[in-house]
Amino acid sequence: MITKSPNWLMQRARLTPDKIAIETNNRNITFKQLFEKSLILSNYFSNHNIKKHTHVAVFMKNSIEIIEVIFALHNLGAVIVFLNNRLTNDELTWQIKNSDCEFLISDVNISFDDINILLSSDFPITINNSTEIQNEFIYEDTATIMFTSGTTGKPKGVMQTYGNHYHSAILSALNLGLHSNDKWLLNLPIFHISGYSTLIKSVIYGMTIVLPENNDSKTIVEAIQKHKVTLVSFVAKVLSDILHVDGDLTSVRAVLLGGGPASSSLLKSAADRGLHVYLSYGMTETASQVVTLTPDSISQKQGSGGRPLFLNSLKIIEDGSIENGYKTGEILVKGPTVMKGYYKNPVATEAAFEGEWLKTGDIGYIDNEGFLYVLDRRKDLIISGGENIYPAEIEAVIGSHPEVIEVGVTGIRDDKWGQVPVAFYVSNSGDDVDLEIFCKERLAKYKVPKRYIKVNKLPRNATGKLKRHELINYLIKDNLC
Amino acid sequence: MITKSPNWLMQRARLTPDKIAIETNNRNITFKQLFEKSLILSNYFSNHNIKKHTHVAVFMKNSIEIIEVIFALHNLGAVIVFLNNRLTNDELTWQIKNSDCEFLISDVNISFDDINILLSSDFPITINNSTEIQNEFIYEDTATIMFTSGTTGKPKGVMQTYGNHYHSAILSALNLGLHSNDKWLLNLPIFHISGYSTLIKSVIYGMTIVLPENNDSKTIVEAIQKHKVTLVSFVAKVLSDILHVDGDLTSVRAVLLGGGPASSSLLKSAADRGLHVYLSYGMTETASQVVTLTPDSISQKQGSGGRPLFLNSLKIIEDGSIENGYKTGEILVKGPTVMKGYYKNPVATEAAFEGEWLKTGDIGYIDNEGFLYVLDRRKDLIISGGENIYPAEIEAVIGSHPEVIEVGVTGIRDDKWGQVPVAFYVSNSGDDVDLEIFCKERLAKYKVPKRYIKVNKLPRNATGKLKRHELINYLIKDNLC
Repeated sequence: MITKSPNWLMQRARLTPDKIAIETNNRNITFKQLFEKSLILSNYFSNHNIKKHTHVAVFMKNSIEIIEVIFALHNLGAVIVFLNNRLTNDELTWQIKNSDCEFLISDVNISFDDINILLSSDFPITINNSTEIQNEFIYEDTATIMFTSGTTGKPKGVMQTYGNHYHSAILSALNLGLHSNDKWLLNLPIFHISGYSTLIKSVIYGMTIVLPENNDSKTIVEAIQKHKVTLVSFVAKVLSDILHVDGDLTSVRAVLLGGGPASSSLLKSAADRGLHVYLSYGMTETASQVVTLTPDSISQKQGSGGRPLFLNSLKIIEDGSIENGYKTGEILVKGPTVMKGYYKNPVATEAAFEGEWLKTGDIGYIDNEGFLYVLDRRKDLIISGGENIYPAEIEAVIGSHPEVIEVGVTGIRDDKWGQVPVAFYVSNSGDDVDLEIFCKERLAKYKVPKRYIKVNKLPRNATGKLKRHELINYLIKDNLC
Repeated sequence: MITKSPNWLMQRARLTPDKIAIETNNRNITFKQLFEKSLILSNYFSNHNIKKHTHVAVFMKNSIEIIEVIFALHNLGAVIVFLNNRLTNDELTWQIKNSDCEFLISDVNISFDDINILLSSDFPITINNSTEIQNEFIYEDTATIMFTSGTTGKPKGVMQTYGNHYHSAILSALNLGLHSNDKWLLNLPIFHISGYSTLIKSVIYGMTIVLPENNDSKTIVEAIQKHKVTLVSFVAKVLSDILHVDGDLTSVRAVLLGGGPASSSLLKSAADRGLHVYLSYGMTETASQVVTLTPDSISQKQGSGGRPLFLNSLKIIEDGSIENGYKTGEILVKGPTVMKGYYKNPVATEAAFEGEWLKTGDIGYIDNEGFLYVLDRRKDLIISGGENIYPAEIEAVIGSHPEVIEVGVTGIRDDKWGQVPVAFYVSNSGDDVDLEIFCKERLAKYKVPKRYIKVNKLPRNATGKLKRHELINYLIKDNLC
């Protein structure tokens, strides 16, 4: 059985050396050139003693350089720990430490204790000496770690294997098809699974990636037009934004739309513009999409996330038993893209699995034709502009403020971001507590609540558990939203 | 890691139930209907005590029925032993016995000793009682056994796993692409890997198969036109034949051409007709193609078999060491489609492998851009109309004739079939020995030599090994070819 494969970029550079791997506004790079560049960096990293299984944090913006770094690290078999560029220093420090990173590769001047920092500005342009690279990828090996937050308030490092990423690329191709002229726009962050997975598709399919200069909707539309992009992955906000920009989108044959729910008016606008939207449901723990809704089903199956990709299976569990036919429960998924577990967190890993099934924590049901409907995102997840925000993480920060007795955070609808977090807190202080600066110092900007509302008490159930969904009632009652 | 998957047809019937699985001249069958029919047959077979791991011989022509039978047997986890319809009774008896078949499923009245025969004319049309089916396929399990001949003169049962077939379908998609309107013409025999692999692509891709009524070139061209076929697999003879038939072939986006070498005049004629030919190199032991030559490389790389599919690797070995850059040696291949081994033949299995590398027995070299050139087909293989013929098998038959002292068989070029076998024999008899009837009784028609030439002695090397390639000199000397 397949438990390994040739090093993807090496094989790709052998099979289609002259095919364009990356197109930017002013540069084209072939697979052969990309591989050669990755070898220079492998050599450089190897001389710094990065080797198989070394944990290396990558803190870089989307660019040709981060792509070269990624393949250079894969050549060496190092484990890449992706850091979200929007995190605060405190958050970064915690993640670097928690994932046992020995090195940090960055495209900005940055300093942390106890870690070797390699700056992209210092990268060499030639090979110094010979370096042995991984000719084969072992599919059970961890390729990447991406952090995802959870109910505990502290992020967990999702271990994604080479096999997870390979199968994710394959299952997506079975779903979306594969055309010889395909070009995929890589506008989502590469440090997220949504962006990274596009990169892996590129080497496995032998497909060109188009890297836009920035994520402005105008730039994106121009890039689509200029490069004749055929495939894009968007979150709802980006799709909504680009629909307001004039331009020719007729080259696009599929829009993969992930990162939370999309309104039917948005889907209608996209259809009016001639776009074929594939709604998708997935998470970092499943190395991107596990379920998709094809454009031909969007109108009959409004609100559905779709059906599983070919090798994936779904089930709904409530009180330990399997639910069928519209009955609601927790969504469990199974398939070759499901993560190995959380790094150095056996308790969370254990809690996340039921045998080989991943417990998503999301609530939903499956209709009689096998379509999944997601009713409640897991653990009160707030999705803002495609970023996942866990209320518990914000609550932990606000709860640490000396004047706050208790706090609850929930998401409210927002036209621009889809959702934004709002905090409700109880305090003995007569005045409102100034929590904004406190939060900004400790949380990435997108996690900082848009409002702080002082209340007399929080809604809790009999056992004292916070009922986050009832927080919204304070807003409705006070006519605040 | 992926070591299993959902039952392919079951999953396909869930995901795209109403998509057409099979189109014939007068019937369309959806994936849901095909799955339902397979369940009826699973139930019938199960009531006859066919179960997981039972070896079942299938002796059927291309038809909807054989497809239903195949998926019914996969539902039960039985091992399918495919029998070539053109074999003689003696050959069939040997293969059935050698593969430990307990059952034989046939579409013609046939009788063999010591085996339960199920005739397709007796198949029920409804389900009798409930049957448990395999919800998952274990990728290491043997799914099929197909016989291939060899130097020893007796065929060997190639064990192909579910994993072999899955990866074969996937790697082909990465090579040929995957379009939503794809339809693959299934004209090659399903009992061969060339035909069976198309079937598996159908369920894994969710792609329609077009089943022509027969293999006449006129019927094939009509089927392509009527059903707007986009993909075909041909052997050289079939391609050559259809190029002589008028008709619209513009719907065809790729022709996969396997089963031996193709002349450059044939490739030119195909290109003139607007066909994009992908030459392929593969064998039963690799569950179909492992190497292909894409249309854009055909003119620069004349005579090449192409480059490996994405997860496959090639190497050339001569006298135990790896040869690079145009140096000739035995071709070895590695990848997830390489067979598990030969059934109950550890000696042949051992001899076929060097670690995880399959020794093809074919001779060739790799150029500096990674293109494979096959110089000599393995073990003096003769390829006639896409069928593999091993000289040793024919020699064993003729050598058993009481008046024959020794015999050598080789292939000569033939305009119609590509190659045909010719026998050279030594006899004490004053007259020519009548070997034709003798061979016809014991060998499938395509294996029966087209000529029998009496000679004084056979060319042998110092150790007494037959030099088959020198047999052809007798013909040249006597001006016979």
